[in-house]
Amino acid sequence: MSSEPDVAPSRRRGRPSAPVLSRTKITGAAMALVHARGYRALTMAGLARQLKVAPSALYNHVASKDDVLRWVQDRVNSAIDADGFRTLAWDEALVRWARSYRAAYARHAPLVALMAVTPITGAPHTVAMYERVASGLCAAGWPEDEVIAVITAVESFVLGSALDTTAPEDIFDVGDLALDAPVLAAVNRARPTGDVARQAFDLGLAALVEGLRARLTAVGTTG
Amino acid sequence: MSSEPDVAPSRRRGRPSAPVLSRTKITGAAMALVHARGYRALTMAGLARQLKVAPSALYNHVASKDDVLRWVQDRVNSAIDADGFRTLAWDEALVRWARSYRAAYARHAPLVALMAVTPITGAPHTVAMYERVASGLCAAGWPEDEVIAVITAVESFVLGSALDTTAPEDIFDVGDLALDAPVLAAVNRARPTGDVARQAFDLGLAALVEGLRARLTAVGTTG
Repeated sequence: MSSEPDVAPSRRRGRPSAPVLSRTKITGAAMALVHARGYRALTMAGLARQLKVAPSALYNHVASKDDVLRWVQDRVNSAIDADGFRTLAWDEALVRWARSYRAAYARHAPLVALMAVTPITGAPHTVAMYERVASGLCAAGWPEDEVIAVITAVESFVLGSALDTTAPEDIFDVGDLALDAPVLAAVNRARPTGDVARQAFDLGLAALVEGLRARLTAVGTTG
Repeated sequence: MSSEPDVAPSRRRGRPSAPVLSRTKITGAAMALVHARGYRALTMAGLARQLKVAPSALYNHVASKDDVLRWVQDRVNSAIDADGFRTLAWDEALVRWARSYRAAYARHAPLVALMAVTPITGAPHTVAMYERVASGLCAAGWPEDEVIAVITAVESFVLGSALDTTAPEDIFDVGDLALDAPVLAAVNRARPTGDVARQAFDLGLAALVEGLRARLTAVGTTG
């Protein structure tokens, strides 16, 4: 994996106080870098500096920045609250999970596109989260062959809503096109003040869960 | 805007057959480049080559790649079908709009994050689309102060679902973590074959619209 296969081992032998890299340590440094300076600052060279190691030493432990991002994503997912599925009714647990999931990705919007396409294999926290959600849905009577679709549908709404938290307040301002769009201008003026992204998320989540409740009543295996 | 302010005009006078740049022409060339070689190929230098002009000539007409992307986005939005709001019941029109919207962005996934944060001012097709949707929702009795939230909620689901169309088929494969996630492994095996992203979208859209219908009944101004 490295063009200098002997450097890291000999250095490790000769300098026992040098930082020993691990997935945990690299992920922690990457999270610290992202929190301090944003995702644009997360490069392999910047990460090596953050860890106070040579880039070649970093590459001995992780093949690419994409792998680092997958580790960061799994760490982000470990903070999402799926515990409600152990104790609450499935629909209340789903709401709690969705709120926590959106909050986590609102702080990590550049990971949204990655979350949508990254296989979960090799991401233990992510797998543990989905296991809890899937168990809760199955226990509530959701047909086994619809559970993945329910999870994916809620996630699509959550990830889109996480992106929406980064939208400017005036995104629906029609500007000098107001004459062409009088209704849009009016409903934009009528919008409540405050956290408009949150209002849309709350309204959409309530509607989605209401619709899912109706579906479970129609198709549920215990309903 | 240009470091060579005299070049383009004199060239235009001297060579009347040279391509005259315009927003329409630049947007068309950018769409052609994206369709042929993907969003990674869309650079100002590449776009100038596609248009057979010098980069300085291109910069005389558009300030940055971000502006080009906003023009492309407006062109993409012009293909989204919001016509149902003229003739159908609002919920049927919403389903038709959401399907068409997802299909458009599934082909332009790199624009998803941009769509979530770009103000609509200066994007005439985008404004026209929202005007039609807002008019349909108002006519159906949605309270004026909830219309933006309804549009945003549906869009969040649609944009998240568009990202999901780019997910690999085996995204929920737990691999060597199967012992830790037996329920997840089981529901993943039980998943119907075929277009799993489409199944999740259809299930979620039906649930979301069902929940919105229930809300309109509760709060609607004509209901």
